[in-house]
Parts: sequence; C-alpha cells; structure tokens
Amino acid sequence: MIRFNNDYNRGACTEILEALGRTNTESYCGYGLDEWCKKGGEEIKKYLGGIDADIHFLTGGTQANYTLIAAALRPFQSVISADCAHINGHETGAVENTGHKILARKNTDGKLSVASILEEALAYKSSGVKEHITQPKLVFLSFPSELGTVYSKSELAEIRRICDEFGMFLYIDGARLGYGLGAEGGDVTIEDIAHYADAFYIGGTKCGALFGEAMVLKNPSLKDNFRSYMKQNGAMLAKGWLPGLQFYTLFKDGLYFSITRNAVVQAMKIKEAFKARSIPLYSESPTNQQFPVLTKAQMDKLSEKYIFEYEKDLGEGLHCVRFCTSWSTDASEVSSLVNDIAGL
Amino acid sequence: MIRFNNDYNRGACTEILEALGRTNTESYCGYGLDEWCKKGGEEIKKYLGGIDADIHFLTGGTQANYTLIAAALRPFQSVISADCAHINGHETGAVENTGHKILARKNTDGKLSVASILEEALAYKSSGVKEHITQPKLVFLSFPSELGTVYSKSELAEIRRICDEFGMFLYIDGARLGYGLGAEGGDVTIEDIAHYADAFYIGGTKCGALFGEAMVLKNPSLKDNFRSYMKQNGAMLAKGWLPGLQFYTLFKDGLYFSITRNAVVQAMKIKEAFKARSIPLYSESPTNQQFPVLTKAQMDKLSEKYIFEYEKDLGEGLHCVRFCTSWSTDASEVSSLVNDIAGL
Amino acid sequence: MIRFNNDYNRGACTEILEALGRTNTESYCGYGLDEWCKKGGEEIKKYLGGIDADIHFLTGGTQANYTLIAAALRPFQSVISADCAHINGHETGAVENTGHKILARKNTDGKLSVASILEEALAYKSSGVKEHITQPKLVFLSFPSELGTVYSKSELAEIRRICDEFGMFLYIDGARLGYGLGAEGGDVTIEDIAHYADAFYIGGTKCGALFGEAMVLKNPSLKDNFRSYMKQNGAMLAKGWLPGLQFYTLFKDGLYFSITRNAVVQAMKIKEAFKARSIPLYSESPTNQQFPVLTKAQMDKLSEKYIFEYEKDLGEGLHCVRFCTSWSTDASEVSSLVNDIAGL
Amino acid sequence: MIRFNNDYNRGACTEILEALGRTNTESYCGYGLDEWCKKGGEEIKKYLGGIDADIHFLTGGTQANYTLIAAALRPFQSVISADCAHINGHETGAVENTGHKILARKNTDGKLSVASILEEALAYKSSGVKEHITQPKLVFLSFPSELGTVYSKSELAEIRRICDEFGMFLYIDGARLGYGLGAEGGDVTIEDIAHYADAFYIGGTKCGALFGEAMVLKNPSLKDNFRSYMKQNGAMLAKGWLPGLQFYTLFKDGLYFSITRNAVVQAMKIKEAFKARSIPLYSESPTNQQFPVLTKAQMDKLSEKYIFEYEKDLGEGLHCVRFCTSWSTDASEVSSLVNDIAGL
Repeated sequence: MIRFNNDYNRGACTEILEALGRTNTESYCGYGLDEWCKKGGEEIKKYLGGIDADIHFLTGGTQANYTLIAAALRPFQSVISADCAHINGHETGAVENTGHKILARKNTDGKLSVASILEEALAYKSSGVKEHITQPKLVFLSFPSELGTVYSKSELAEIRRICDEFGMFLYIDGARLGYGLGAEGGDVTIEDIAHYADAFYIGGTKCGALFGEAMVLKNPSLKDNFRSYMKQNGAMLAKGWLPGLQFYTLFKDGLYFSITRNAVVQAMKIKEAFKARSIPLYSESPTNQQFPVLTKAQMDKLSEKYIFEYEKDLGEGLHCVRFCTSWSTDASEVSSLVNDIAGL
Repeated sequence: MIRFNNDYNRGACTEILEALGRTNTESYCGYGLDEWCKKGGEEIKKYLGGIDADIHFLTGGTQANYTLIAAALRPFQSVISADCAHINGHETGAVENTGHKILARKNTDGKLSVASILEEALAYKSSGVKEHITQPKLVFLSFPSELGTVYSKSELAEIRRICDEFGMFLYIDGARLGYGLGAEGGDVTIEDIAHYADAFYIGGTKCGALFGEAMVLKNPSLKDNFRSYMKQNGAMLAKGWLPGLQFYTLFKDGLYFSITRNAVVQAMKIKEAFKARSIPLYSESPTNQQFPVLTKAQMDKLSEKYIFEYEKDLGEGLHCVRFCTSWSTDASEVSSLVNDIAGL
Repeated sequence: MIRFNNDYNRGACTEILEALGRTNTESYCGYGLDEWCKKGGEEIKKYLGGIDADIHFLTGGTQANYTLIAAALRPFQSVISADCAHINGHETGAVENTGHKILARKNTDGKLSVASILEEALAYKSSGVKEHITQPKLVFLSFPSELGTVYSKSELAEIRRICDEFGMFLYIDGARLGYGLGAEGGDVTIEDIAHYADAFYIGGTKCGALFGEAMVLKNPSLKDNFRSYMKQNGAMLAKGWLPGLQFYTLFKDGLYFSITRNAVVQAMKIKEAFKARSIPLYSESPTNQQFPVLTKAQMDKLSEKYIFEYEKDLGEGLHCVRFCTSWSTDASEVSSLVNDIAGL
Repeated sequence: MIRFNNDYNRGACTEILEALGRTNTESYCGYGLDEWCKKGGEEIKKYLGGIDADIHFLTGGTQANYTLIAAALRPFQSVISADCAHINGHETGAVENTGHKILARKNTDGKLSVASILEEALAYKSSGVKEHITQPKLVFLSFPSELGTVYSKSELAEIRRICDEFGMFLYIDGARLGYGLGAEGGDVTIEDIAHYADAFYIGGTKCGALFGEAMVLKNPSLKDNFRSYMKQNGAMLAKGWLPGLQFYTLFKDGLYFSITRNAVVQAMKIKEAFKARSIPLYSESPTNQQFPVLTKAQMDKLSEKYIFEYEKDLGEGLHCVRFCTSWSTDASEVSSLVNDIAGL
C-alpha cells in the first residue's frame, strides 16, 4: 500500500538523520539555549527580509498555536478564524482550554475572507456593550488553508491593513508553510509572510523534519517571556537543540524550499490526472493536498493500492477524499497513482 | 421617560422588600446553610413534580451558566447552543474562560433546533478522530430564548430523548423562566422543565427579586460538590439567606408565576398594538420581550417618551428594537405606549 | 443564642434598607452604568486623597480577589501572599482556577512579612532559569489580616517600595477594611491605603451593607477593560445600582467609618474581658476579630449562650476560637458576653 | 569541558539512532495509532507484573505531568506534593495553569513524607467547610526525588494505603525512573511502581531516548479519553511512532535498565570520591545525581574541566552543586573527575 493520506507518515530527510547522527555524542546546553537553536534561527532569518524576529522551536502545531495564542491574548480577547481552521475543528478545543473564544467564520474555499475579518472587527468597535462580548484581537490564518488553498499577496496586505486599523495581531499557522510557498501560481514568499504577520510558525513536522516547528515572533509585544509560555505549555524540550539542528539543516541551503516545491510539483501531476479523468476537485488547491470528489466505486478501486484520507460524504453518491504528497513522496509512487487515476 | 428597555431596571416586589426588612435584625448562618435557603428550596420543589433535586442560590445569570458548565464538563467536552444564546454572545466568553468550547448553531427563531443538536451529536459519534475534536456533552437552551420564543413540550421531549441517546446533559437557562412559563399559548409548565432538564435555573433578577437565581440540580452526577464550584466561582454569598429568603417569598404563594404572567399579558397588548399598526415583528414572541421592526421616524417618535433597546440595523431603513415588560410594569405605562403606537 | 461567630450574620444598616426602599420603584440603567454607582464612587473618592481611581462594585470578596488577579496577571505570573491568606486557604483554589500560582509564605501574626516579599522578589530576579518558574507580580495583603492584625503605615510604605523596585502590583483585600481602619492604636487611614496600593477593595458585606464590595483601581494598567473582566467572571450585577447605592449611603456621611469603629470599640471590651480573666489570645488583634485560647470547659460554658467560630485545636486541651463583633453588634450583647467571660 | 550538569545533554543511545534510521523510509499511521506504539507498550508491559494498563507516549515531563493532572482532577481538586517537587518549582506554574492548586509540603530529603500526606488528607476530611477549600485528590511523587533520593517499597505501600483510604490517586513522575530503579541499595522494582501507582510515567528523555516519556495508566478512571487530553494539551505527536519506536528499543531487551544502572554505578564512584575527600553531600543520594557541598575554591577548581549545575548558596562560604551521570556518561570522564576530586 502506498500512503497518500497525509504528509507526516515518514521519518525525516536524509540530511536531518545524518545531522542527528553526526552530533549524537556531542553535549549541549538544555532548553533551547544551545548553539544549534541559535544557528537555526540565523539561517531562517536570512530568508525573512531583515526583520527583527525572535525564533523559538516547538514540537508540534497544536502546541504552537495555543501557546502563541495564550501568550498573545488577555482573558477577554478572542480569535477570528475560518470555521474549518485547524484550531476550530481539529485541536480538541485547545484554544478554548487556554480560556479564549474563537469567533469562527464561514470559510471561502478554506480561507478566512477579508470581509468576515472586517465584519468582526467592526462589530466590536461599534458595539455599545463591549464588556459583554469578547474583543477580537488575533486573526488566525493557515497558509495554506485546510483545503490547500493559499492567500494572495494582496489579500495578506489587506488583512494586515485591517489588523493595523483595529489593533489586532495577525498570526499565521504554517504547518505546511513550505507547500504554501511552493504553490503553483502563488505570489507569496516567506519574506512576505514575515512582512505581514506579527507571528507565524514554519512547519517542520510535515515538511521534512523528524519533528519540530519554528515560531517566528516579530511583534515586540509578543516576544517578552515567550520562553515562559513555552515551558508552561509543555513546548520546551529539554534537548532543545534537536529541532534547532533540524531547522538549521533545512534552511542553511534552502532544502526546505526545494523539497516542498517538489511535493507540489508531484501534487500537480495528481491534480491533472483527476482533471484529465473529469473527476471534480472539492477545492482548487495549488499545493500538496488534493481533494478529489469520487464515487464509491472509484474510492474502492483506488483503495486497492493507495491509502488516502476520507473527508466527507457529499451526498448523491459522491465523497470528498484527500491525497497528499510530501517531501518524502517518490516520483514512482505518483506515476503509479496517475496511471491508476487514468484507468478509473 | 418610561423604561421598556429591559426587565431589570427596578428593585424588587414589595413583598420581597418587606421580607428583607422584617428579617434584617435576625442573625443567620452564612454561605447558604441557613433556614431561608432551606425553606426557599422546599417551596420551589412543591412545583417540580416530586423530583429529587438540590437547589442552590446564586447571584446572577452569567455566573449561574458558567458555574454549572464548569461543574458539568471535563476539559475536552463542549456545549451545543444556538448562535444567539446568551452564553455565546453576551457573557464575554465566560464559558470559554472556564476552558470549554461552544458549538454554536444557527438559531431558528432564537431557538436551538432539534435537528442541529442531533447533527452535532451524530458528528461526534461517527467521527473516526474523536480525540481531535471536543465531545458535545451539554445542550444549552434558554427558556424563553433571546428572541422571546419558547420551546414546546414536544420539542423538549425530543431534545431530552436525544440527550439520553447520546449521553448529554440538558441544561436550561431560565433567566426569564417566569415569562416563558407564562407564554401566551405556551404548553410548558415548570414541572415539565424539571422533568426534561438535568439542571436549570429559575431567574429571580428579572422576575421580581432584588437579585438572585435558583439553580435546580436533578441529575445526581451534577449534585456532588456543587457548593465547591459555587465558592470557587464567586457564586456563594456570605449572606446566603438573602436570595433564599427572596425565592421563599416568590414561591410560597405562587407570586413568581402571577407577576410574570401579568407581564406577558401587558406585553401582548404591546404586541397587538404593533400588529394593529401593521408594524412587523422580528420574532413571533409570546413572552415579555417584543421585537418590532421600526423605521427611523418611528424610533425617533417613540424615543420621545420611552426608553427601549436598539437591537440591530436590518437595512433598507428598518431597525429591530426591543420593548420589555416586567413584573414591575405598570398598566398605565403600557396604555400610554399602546396609544402612542397607534398614533405612529 | 447570640452570634459572635462572624460579621456577616445580619442584613444591613437601617440607612441602607431605607435607601433600597426609597428607590425601589425608580428605574435605572443596568450593569453599573447608573447614577448611584457614579455617586457612590464619588463619595468614596472624597476619602482617597485625590487619587485618580476607577471604582467598580462587585458582589463578594472571593469574586473581587480572583477577578482582580485575573485582570492583573499574565499566565506565567504569580501572587505572593501569606499562607493564612483568604485566597490561599478559604476560596477553594479560585486563584489557581484562573491559572495563577500563589507563592504562599509563612505568616507573621497573620501578616505577610516585608522580608518574605523581598525574598520572593529577589529569588526571581536572581534566578538563572526564569522561564522555569513563575514571576511574582502581585503582592496580596489583607487589611486587617485573617488574625485581625493590621499593617503599620511604615510597613505599607516599605512594601510599596519593594513593589516599585521589582515591578509588582500591591493589592489589598479589604473585606474588613473598616475594622482595620478603626483598629485600636492603628496609624493607617483609607487615604494611606489608596496611596500605597495599586488596587484594593472596600468591603461592604461585612461592614454594614446588605452585600457588595467596592474595587478601587489606581494603577492605570489595571483600569482598562476591568468591566470586561467583571462580566466574564460573573461579577457584574444586572441591577448594578444596588451596591452603588449602598456604598453611596455608607460613605456620604462617613457611616462606614463610624459603624466599623464602633465594632472595634466593642471588640476591645471583649478583648479586655479575656485578658482580665487571664485567658490568652492567639493573636494580638486590635480589630473586630478576637481569638481567645479556651479550654474545653470554657468553650462549653460560653457555648450555652453564644455562637462563636471554632478555629483549631492547639493541643494540650487548648482551643483557638473566634469572637467577632460587627456593625450590627449590640452593646448589650457585648455586656452580656463580658460578664460571662468574667464568670468563667 | 566535560558536562556533568544534567542527564539530557546528549542525543540518544546508538540503538535508538539505528532504529530511527532503519525505519525512516517506512510509512506509518499518525498520532500514536501505529505498530511501534503498540509494540513499545507491549514490551513495557512485560515488566509491569501483569497489570492492565494503557500506555501513551508523550514528548516531555512537564507536559506529561500537567496533562495527567488535568485529566485526573476536577476544578476544585488539588495535588499534594513536596515543596521541592518539579511541578511546584520548575514548571512555570503549569499545574496551576490547568486550574489546580498544589498543596506543597516541606520535603524530607527531597521526598514527600507519609506524615504530610496523611495530614493533608485528614485536614480535608475533618474540615467543616469543605466547599471553601480544595480537595486533595492526587499525591504526586517523583522517583527518584529532586535530591536523588528514593522511596522505599514500604513507604510506597504506606502511601498507597493512605491513597486508598482517602480516595486519592497516586501518581509518580518517573523522569529519571531508570536511575531510581537502579538506586544503590534500593528495593523498588518497576513492577512495584506499577503495583502501587494509579499512573506513572517512564522517562525516556533523560534515560537514553532522543526524547519521549511513556505514560502508564492503570486506574481505569484515568484511561478514558486520555488521548483527547493529550491532543488538547499539545502532547500528541503527528509522528507518534517516534517515541513508540524508541521505547520499544529501550525495553525489548532491557536496555533501559542496564544503561541507567550503569549511570548509577558511575555516580557512586563520584560519590565515594567526594566522601573520601571529606566533602559533605547535601543529600544521601543513591542515584545518578550527586549534590556535593563545595567551597568557592573547590568549585572554581572543578569548573576548569567540568560543567556542573549550581544549586544554591548555603552560606558560610559553602555551595550546593549538582553532578549528574547519565546513560551517555563515559567511564573515562568519571575517572578523570574522580581523580580531580581526590586532588582538591
């Protein structure tokens, strides 16, 4: 069976395993105060357009999201997100567990629309009973979204403008950031992300690392005491150099970008195969996740050789499923799939 | 100016002020362990059809809601409510502040529909990734709803059945319970409420008391340690007998029911006046809150003599506002308003 | 039976009941935006030495404490208090329930010593692993303490200096503030309290009001959005004018100070009676709470006519108990007790 | 420089690196539902005396502690621990951040004494105002303690008995469990730990793994929904097989026990060296952490070649420091240190 169900089903890039082996008998300072975390941050910053950022390494995406939100918000403040956002539907209420409400808005192709952000901000601003409602203080975007779609540079610029106008933080969940930056036809660079966001994280787990996420903090008010929030929220590894070393390895020669772009190239082959076969796609995704709409017979056929993720029953005998490529996807696996799609 | 903006703009029923005066120099046990809390609970229970309930007295509705929810749920469990529910939009994220997610569903005339409860329950039951989502464990209803509408007895029975099937609590916010029970054409008694709910509170603040809400706990698993939750959540008055005495006064001769029913009778006159004048109503409310849809000119005219609450701009020059009657509404105030509506 | 067990066993001063009666049929704005809250605050501020303060009215002490602490602290920050402080041992972990650690220090006669505050502040400042520990950010004092003792003006000045040096808030729980200010031989005025504290509350429940506490916020950083914290924490009454009116009544002619000072005068008679009878006192309290150390026989004898609070078994047949006077204590009740103490 | 400052300054056992390399291109189910987590749990259970346990793999100790506590306790319940316990002083208030109070008791040689557990349990049981205090519901032990000391089998038996009598959970933090089980002269086996505890975790990070902790849940009431708590608390790795594989590797042939026992053997040499040189030890530790009391001159001398952890200033020119051995300690490093101690 070939797994296309997700982008976290294999270990790590060879380069990362080698780095771990090479440094295994060295001894390091604990809790992220080591040289690799320093170097990893420096390599990342080379791509960020000269912003003054603090970079911290955490172990997972849910953890990264709620730790940042807990650090950013006061108890009466809330988050604006798309209804399909990972924090709203796939993290077991972790944000609410830190005490904060999510103002979830109906998504547009997986994205949070500029209009809905503006509506929530205006609703609070114009409210005569502000103390009875929460203050929307942080806009949560995923890049790419849960449906694989990406924001354009002009959308990000407009969202930034709204955040500035209403005093809100812009935070970007980059669990799959590499795939988003490598989007077919996309116009957003990591420098743009750094320019527009107050904070974002660069996903490692799904993009070539064994594990780890790099949180980039740009807004000065988010920087203070972030390590305290990390420790309090279980996000500070004793062997903090492990993710630092991995991100050093991924960024020092641009490996992060090449492996994720390649995954997108592979995904485009799968996308084209579905299109060629006139199978509709649930979203027009230019990234590594593809959401074809299949009949039961088509699902059964593909299930003989491939593992993919069931998303939902669309009624009338149609089903949305997900095929993911990743940094570890083999071109021959994709060729096989493409052939089998053609034969459906 | 005559206030119709809400049902909590005056002190208390004469009988309650008299009771406070009569007992003022008596001395009592603290923290709700006094004789009036005991007697108040006993008087209430006479109306509850013989259920085995614990009754506690709290000071406000927000407090009652989040204290009950904090006591009922484990951290990974959530609440199903209507999107317009008080807990979702008027309590500053108090439920999320206790750590719990609200699964807010689009309301139907202010109510949470049976269908949407079932959908949420089924979504969890059928989920293959339960540990990534919250477990809906408590259904939150308001009786009457934020739009003044009430559930029918058959609706409550069906919701109860779903709660039983999926192991969920049914909790009813009765901030305006008296007005709901006195609904024009309603078929639900307080005995029905007690029969169907696992817990509910009987609102005092808006229904004749100076302040205070009576929480009725029927489900045995909600009874244990509720006083600990009250104390921890600032809901236990040192002079606990004050709300106990007030509820004793309201229930010993049925005063609670007569004053709230009278308020509904007054509200019906206002409703008829709007209807007679062909002014549309935003909801078909059979209780003490009426939501006429007015033009700016009509609002301005009525604003000369009356205070009412602005709800929202409906566009095209129309505005939804709220007129409330209450236990303290004077018949002459209503006559005046009815005349002025006719003259619009 | 005559109750000396606490200072919250009777209703309210006559003046307050009268005020409630006089205004009962008036109608007011909700949620503390009414004229009485405004006037009540103004009357209080006349005693505060011209500080620029915001004043809010809450319903109880536990609620006041945790709401203020939730508003003041970030998640990684903690409170320094005496081990016997109300927040540490009598509020069901309410502060921890808001997410904050209490650094509890062994008390000195019920008080938090200057030395222990300094130790905690220095321990954090000198720590090399600050992100592994909480930051002490708020010093919690009770005035008077749980043992009835009071801080001197010079102690408060020194604590203020330490708070300034280390960037900590000084918050004073004044559940019994009136009795503390009326302490026999005390040198602290309410103006001093206002001068030294960043925030404090003036207790009403135990000092003549039916219920209610007046929170005084002086530090600008504590003022913003405090009403949001109140609403979120169930501390905002719909009929907000009720405590406002009560504090207006207590402060407009200094009633608050005279009734509490009188209670202290009564307590001193009881204290002298125990001393005259050579019965030791557990603390040298100059306020309304007295803690005699009795034998079982003495307890039994006094229990025939009086209700008092058992505190703890001191071993060797001795028991610490509490006798409280209050604003409602009758001089004849005290005379009776004094006689009976003499006859032990 | 040779690091003896802690037991987490190097990567992982060779066997673990090899296992990671060998499986790197295999693809697995996510979130701990893979075969390695299953096999890892099975290997561990072979040592647990046949108990019916659920085993989950988390990424760090702080996370393991607060996730278990959040899962075990209701909001009004608290933890009994030693004052020096990791949760009380080194986890940035993580337990309080989940809403729970820690009842911290003065330690006895780093341990929580049987007597102090009993005192807290009895204090609650005999309290007449239970709703004003928290209920001690979980006893937190570290094995070994922060001072390297271990509980005896009879101490654990007695603590278990008290927990049973008062309905409390016994939870053991085993961050250094291997070193505790290998204690010189100790009489506790991992089977004993499993027999007495309701839950405990087996530390991997400090005992040979790259990272990871294995939580063992025995008490049925702790098992339900633990994966939901993990996900909500950021403790569920997408690549869940990584810690599962590591624990499989550590337990399938007893490697976990041999490498940690060896570290203790090395530590004993260091201990003897200090004793031979008449340098006092702050605690009589039979495990991998040694706490000599040094003069400034001795510290300076040893600092020339070794990194060790400063603990605290004991006054009179004496300082407590920590030397740790670990699974990765080289015998030649120890020989060097032993020689240099002799030469002090």
